[in-house]
Amino acid sequence: MKINIINGPNLALLGKREPEVYGKNGLKEIMNLVIARGKELDIEIETFQSDIEGELVQYIGNCMGNTDGLIINPAAYTHTSVAIRDAIKASDLPCVEVHLSNTMAREEFRHTSLTAGVCIGQIMGFGAYSYILALEGLAKQLTNN
Amino acid sequence: MKINIINGPNLALLGKREPEVYGKNGLKEIMNLVIARGKELDIEIETFQSDIEGELVQYIGNCMGNTDGLIINPAAYTHTSVAIRDAIKASDLPCVEVHLSNTMAREEFRHTSLTAGVCIGQIMGFGAYSYILALEGLAKQLTNN
Amino acid sequence: MKINIINGPNLALLGKREPEVYGKNGLKEIMNLVIARGKELDIEIETFQSDIEGELVQYIGNCMGNTDGLIINPAAYTHTSVAIRDAIKASDLPCVEVHLSNTMAREEFRHTSLTAGVCIGQIMGFGAYSYILALEGLAKQLTNN
Amino acid sequence: MKINIINGPNLALLGKREPEVYGKNGLKEIMNLVIARGKELDIEIETFQSDIEGELVQYIGNCMGNTDGLIINPAAYTHTSVAIRDAIKASDLPCVEVHLSNTMAREEFRHTSLTAGVCIGQIMGFGAYSYILALEGLAKQLTNN
Amino acid sequence: MKINIINGPNLALLGKREPEVYGKNGLKEIMNLVIARGKELDIEIETFQSDIEGELVQYIGNCMGNTDGLIINPAAYTHTSVAIRDAIKASDLPCVEVHLSNTMAREEFRHTSLTAGVCIGQIMGFGAYSYILALEGLAKQLTNN
Amino acid sequence: MKINIINGPNLALLGKREPEVYGKNGLKEIMNLVIARGKELDIEIETFQSDIEGELVQYIGNCMGNTDGLIINPAAYTHTSVAIRDAIKASDLPCVEVHLSNTMAREEFRHTSLTAGVCIGQIMGFGAYSYILALEGLAKQLTNN
Amino acid sequence: MKINIINGPNLALLGKREPEVYGKNGLKEIMNLVIARGKELDIEIETFQSDIEGELVQYIGNCMGNTDGLIINPAAYTHTSVAIRDAIKASDLPCVEVHLSNTMAREEFRHTSLTAGVCIGQIMGFGAYSYILALEGLAKQLTNN
Amino acid sequence: MKINIINGPNLALLGKREPEVYGKNGLKEIMNLVIARGKELDIEIETFQSDIEGELVQYIGNCMGNTDGLIINPAAYTHTSVAIRDAIKASDLPCVEVHLSNTMAREEFRHTSLTAGVCIGQIMGFGAYSYILALEGLAKQLTNN
Amino acid sequence: MKINIINGPNLALLGKREPEVYGKNGLKEIMNLVIARGKELDIEIETFQSDIEGELVQYIGNCMGNTDGLIINPAAYTHTSVAIRDAIKASDLPCVEVHLSNTMAREEFRHTSLTAGVCIGQIMGFGAYSYILALEGLAKQLTNN
Amino acid sequence: MKINIINGPNLALLGKREPEVYGKNGLKEIMNLVIARGKELDIEIETFQSDIEGELVQYIGNCMGNTDGLIINPAAYTHTSVAIRDAIKASDLPCVEVHLSNTMAREEFRHTSLTAGVCIGQIMGFGAYSYILALEGLAKQLTNN
Amino acid sequence: MKINIINGPNLALLGKREPEVYGKNGLKEIMNLVIARGKELDIEIETFQSDIEGELVQYIGNCMGNTDGLIINPAAYTHTSVAIRDAIKASDLPCVEVHLSNTMAREEFRHTSLTAGVCIGQIMGFGAYSYILALEGLAKQLTNN
Amino acid sequence: MKINIINGPNLALLGKREPEVYGKNGLKEIMNLVIARGKELDIEIETFQSDIEGELVQYIGNCMGNTDGLIINPAAYTHTSVAIRDAIKASDLPCVEVHLSNTMAREEFRHTSLTAGVCIGQIMGFGAYSYILALEGLAKQLTNN
Repeated sequence: MKINIINGPNLALLGKREPEVYGKNGLKEIMNLVIARGKELDIEIETFQSDIEGELVQYIGNCMGNTDGLIINPAAYTHTSVAIRDAIKASDLPCVEVHLSNTMAREEFRHTSLTAGVCIGQIMGFGAYSYILALEGLAKQLTNN
Repeated sequence: MKINIINGPNLALLGKREPEVYGKNGLKEIMNLVIARGKELDIEIETFQSDIEGELVQYIGNCMGNTDGLIINPAAYTHTSVAIRDAIKASDLPCVEVHLSNTMAREEFRHTSLTAGVCIGQIMGFGAYSYILALEGLAKQLTNN
Repeated sequence: MKINIINGPNLALLGKREPEVYGKNGLKEIMNLVIARGKELDIEIETFQSDIEGELVQYIGNCMGNTDGLIINPAAYTHTSVAIRDAIKASDLPCVEVHLSNTMAREEFRHTSLTAGVCIGQIMGFGAYSYILALEGLAKQLTNN
Repeated sequence: MKINIINGPNLALLGKREPEVYGKNGLKEIMNLVIARGKELDIEIETFQSDIEGELVQYIGNCMGNTDGLIINPAAYTHTSVAIRDAIKASDLPCVEVHLSNTMAREEFRHTSLTAGVCIGQIMGFGAYSYILALEGLAKQLTNN
Repeated sequence: MKINIINGPNLALLGKREPEVYGKNGLKEIMNLVIARGKELDIEIETFQSDIEGELVQYIGNCMGNTDGLIINPAAYTHTSVAIRDAIKASDLPCVEVHLSNTMAREEFRHTSLTAGVCIGQIMGFGAYSYILALEGLAKQLTNN
Repeated sequence: MKINIINGPNLALLGKREPEVYGKNGLKEIMNLVIARGKELDIEIETFQSDIEGELVQYIGNCMGNTDGLIINPAAYTHTSVAIRDAIKASDLPCVEVHLSNTMAREEFRHTSLTAGVCIGQIMGFGAYSYILALEGLAKQLTNN
Repeated sequence: MKINIINGPNLALLGKREPEVYGKNGLKEIMNLVIARGKELDIEIETFQSDIEGELVQYIGNCMGNTDGLIINPAAYTHTSVAIRDAIKASDLPCVEVHLSNTMAREEFRHTSLTAGVCIGQIMGFGAYSYILALEGLAKQLTNN
Repeated sequence: MKINIINGPNLALLGKREPEVYGKNGLKEIMNLVIARGKELDIEIETFQSDIEGELVQYIGNCMGNTDGLIINPAAYTHTSVAIRDAIKASDLPCVEVHLSNTMAREEFRHTSLTAGVCIGQIMGFGAYSYILALEGLAKQLTNN
Repeated sequence: MKINIINGPNLALLGKREPEVYGKNGLKEIMNLVIARGKELDIEIETFQSDIEGELVQYIGNCMGNTDGLIINPAAYTHTSVAIRDAIKASDLPCVEVHLSNTMAREEFRHTSLTAGVCIGQIMGFGAYSYILALEGLAKQLTNN
Repeated sequence: MKINIINGPNLALLGKREPEVYGKNGLKEIMNLVIARGKELDIEIETFQSDIEGELVQYIGNCMGNTDGLIINPAAYTHTSVAIRDAIKASDLPCVEVHLSNTMAREEFRHTSLTAGVCIGQIMGFGAYSYILALEGLAKQLTNN
Repeated sequence: MKINIINGPNLALLGKREPEVYGKNGLKEIMNLVIARGKELDIEIETFQSDIEGELVQYIGNCMGNTDGLIINPAAYTHTSVAIRDAIKASDLPCVEVHLSNTMAREEFRHTSLTAGVCIGQIMGFGAYSYILALEGLAKQLTNN
Repeated sequence: MKINIINGPNLALLGKREPEVYGKNGLKEIMNLVIARGKELDIEIETFQSDIEGELVQYIGNCMGNTDGLIINPAAYTHTSVAIRDAIKASDLPCVEVHLSNTMAREEFRHTSLTAGVCIGQIMGFGAYSYILALEGLAKQLTNN
């Protein structure tokens, strides 16, 4: 089983950016935790990060037919990107949306998600652990079907 | 460690109600799965279900000082209850909001949550497995702090 | 054939409450008129009233599999209750929404109905006679199918 | 006693138009059913249909002083016509609004009615039988006053 | 100098319709008063009434090149008709909008005017005398230019 | 008979301010035209101008019992002043709202009037002549009652 | 003279819940203060608390004819309950709405009140003393009429 | 193959009305261009124009079963007519919406279309040539299916 | 202890203006009642009234450092004045907002308050007695801190 | 004559992505059809696709002075990109907006276009043939001017 | 060259009012800094402050023809005053809007400006230095033209 | 001291794009003016331009720890980019937002800024000179702290 994890804008700054909101670990450390958990579950994990909406779109398109599922943290693009929504829908892959912070407890413009409606589910608020939970949830989903 | 799981209106109908949306298992079977997972994690689990908003409010209030955290599926009250929001806030307990279905993929009035803003996070769309993920996420959170 | 009639908040005050809007008959007298009309149509009628949203939800859930159809006057909950909407949908029973007064001629917040969208139809403005018309309409519907 | 039944735009297509929504009977057959029921109740019924908003306005105006009550299915004009609203109000006649389908279960722009607020009530969702119920409801109303 | 006065839906009911709002005079009597005042000002006046939006549109179109100005009481169409707005604009004739009642003191949906923006001005609230004032205002305007 | 004419902010700049919109005459010249017309109609006219909302409020209050009616051009305060609305209502005097330009043909925030709803009517778009028409309309109104 | 004081959801947690917002006294202590003040004013006071909207509705209905006035702190239901609004209106009793905190200084969804419009007035922001002021205000009102 | 072209309000004024927006050709000349192009494509073309919404509705209804497709320029009714929308849907005919001007570059109320959602597509902004393109597009569509 | 009472626009008309809404007493009589009650509580009271928003702003600014608290009835400015809001905030004085009538039971534009959010609380609906209650509430507040 | 065709995000997936909505042909095949049609019309065609908003912006900027017109399918960016709107406006080139599907018949957020207002027109709903029609329409436009 | 600086409500409290937001300098000190900088640039500066909207309006009107440009800090009136907007427009003078704080980082009602649209530009967030920058920007502008 | 200047989409077209709005100078010439002014103030300036939102995000992230402050002209992304807002916030650098034109005087969708709320201030409307003022303002700010 293979799962691709996609990280959106500003996530390369993790560890440096507002640590009281997003935690002290860098993105690489977080991804390594998820890869390690993937190994335990016998899931190959490929990770990708880009600040560029269109590169995220392209990467999702390229996943079509080459993976079993997606985990995406669209970050700021969650609230503004119809293009990523279309890419997820077009890929026809099961996708889980994750957020480090609880976006429902922040500014009102973060309370909507253009992308969640085409995902199978959403996990937010557990910091780095959101990815682990998403991995387990997606693995469960893929195993059941 | 003790965690209370609170289920809102119409969840007693699980297994009978729109099984293509909510799955075939009854609430009791789902809760038993979570209790079993709790045992593995050495967490005592108490469950509660009510169709009555005020009973949910009262139950949350009674949890104050008697438990370590809450998992709540407010169901329809997610979108209309300021009272449950106030109860969660008043209890000062870490709380995870769960939904069986992905509410962001359903009617627009289900895209808002009055309660999520006072929780530590939200997990939705994994059916019964949403509770398992919430349990693991909350346990992680309680262990870290 | 059996039909359950469900009455929401403040309807126990009928006859006493704003008689110029809601008429002079108490709820019991109105229900007796409907039961009498039911007898003429060979329909058994069971009635229920509660001021509590969750008890209405629970009653509707209990009707599942035990009756042929519902007539509901959700009163104030018409405009605020997602929970009753979900209960009617979950019950999978044909349901007619009734109102004594013409809610479209009153305050603007009474112009929307969260529940009507999951009913087969709506009858409003005929006072107690709204129930009689609903009974005849629902009976017709059940006979046709 | 005399009652005029007024049918708005596209209703002349009944029987041909989307039969799964509006039923298989043509308007004439439906009107004949209502006229027959009127005879049983000793009510003379006159029917009118026009696709033209202004002709409906004019017809309503001409009813003033020549009839005891109106039943109107404004169809699409329900949601857009201040002119028909004004005509009903100007006529000072008791009026019942009917719809074949449950407009509250269709597109959101069909959830409002500009005309219902000046009627004594509204009946929707019973197909052709909506007219029969409206006739009985209006007759009851006229008899009581 | 020639001016055409155009009256919209339900105005044929004047004198009969809600006399406490619209006054006791019929449309013909009001038009005669305006024609009389026109004579004093040496202005030929032609009047037209229709309940049909499209006939009003057509009449305005026909005025193009055949008159010096328009006075229009679009009545209910004031608030809903882009077509009449387009007709007035297309005619390239100076137009005054009149209303018998003060629409700003009535229901909120009467507070907007789709047509006033393409007129030279608006006069409302003076009953039949609104037309006299409009005639004088328009005459003044035509004389100045 | 006595009528007070009240002019709001920036009207002292008339003649100097955007003459293509408001005309070339100063406020004094315009008021003199109205006073002259008042003499012909045997109406004493008192005029007042202030840029200060509260002075307009105070002046209206002082008119109570000392005059027969008001003509007001609230200018910019038309769209923002609840205080002037309250003053007109409190004065219990018949009042006509006038505007030099057609506010419905300008920026959208000029399409609403907080004050018109408590006046007997509104006249706009005739430049200085708006005042003359208002005077005649108000005189007519006062004579009829 | 008798006055009934009605307390809504989460108020049983007073003293424990967010003491920096709601104060350190429990509900019982606050009610005792009001009862004591009632004795000084020769007013019998009965108090009631429920977390359940429908029980509040029912209690208000039962007050009809058995008391002289109501003081209500609807808490979270202030912003969501049409049912309590209807109950207050139906009871035909003079009612004062109180809040411990100044809801206008908190989240925006707390800036509206569905219930205040059917009360004689509103007092908020004085902590426990809000009830004392409400008692005095209501007593004054009842004495004057 | 047969296609009916339907033209809405004010289009009879083409050539006379705002030629800088709508071009110098009259409607007849434009229709003749389309008929000529139809002949080249072996398509019989019937054209219709009315200023009256209900006549457009009726004409569309009459097309049912008598033609292969529709081209409609609803003009002002694009933005206000649910009745024409219903007629197009009811006719079950493939329909193309055309506009001479680019309505998205004009007033904001022209940016919505009630009718486009029930058409197969929309072409706007090419003046008379919009009709030619619509004809070719519709012909292509009809040939493919 | 010293408290300044500030009265906004149109309040000088009290006793004359809509007595059925605002009562029969003039402002001076009401202020004398409050001053008398102040004497009983050993509080010096200074009162101020202006129809001019900016004079109210200036007066509040001048209160800084010269008084212990404010009672303000901003009247119409409640709903429109950011300047008064800023003045109250800037003064850093505890302030109570009062209204004679229950603004929540009047026009919808009176349901919001720009000023209440920077006050400690709000009292409305008790007529002149609103001031007495505000005085007692503010005195209590000042004594506690 | 030269025309540049610009394709936005996810269009590289054509043929693979939701073929029931977007058709079975890949983008290259569609572009080849358009190039072939261009040859017949003696128009050189250059095509470009990018998933990246800023690359589309840059490409449009580079077209300035190097081509005669643009055809753009902004796909998801239609609804969110002010930057592409600005680029089209800045380029001062005639541009036609195309869509494969009828966006007015899909989700509500697809009913607006930020880009269409700066184009000469819009063509949607004809699948790959939308591009052919756009080419013909633009060629016609360029030939006329 | 001469420039007039106009300061709105509550600015007289500078130095005393919320110094953490607005800084510790009084208005006089700030104006002296700007006057000094004006001397260096050979610009005569006249300053004005009023809490009264209408006095600001009047002052701006009086500037017409007597100065070269305006710098205005409308403070709270930024968000509510159509009258000041009209005055700036009427004056036909180049005007720069300044704010001490960054209004876009404060309450949402401070995110709009009724006045900025008729200015040449806006400078905010630099405390007292906002005025210096505005002076330099305006001087540059006046020198260029 | 070092400051980085960041320019968003379409700014590479400066000098060519709508010169009546944006001026005749190219971006390079403008940046050279700012660099020259920087030298006078002993500030090293680095400039960057990209049409790609994500490259702007990345550049801002890279500035963290390598510069003293930012000046950004987000151009079209001002109104749509949560990602740039997050990047500025994440960088924890003082930032000034600049615009060449006065966006408050242009289309309504340009009246909001998603980015300004996380900047220290905003300067707009002075053409190229906006950058000079921003540089001076930011330098002042950096020197003070």
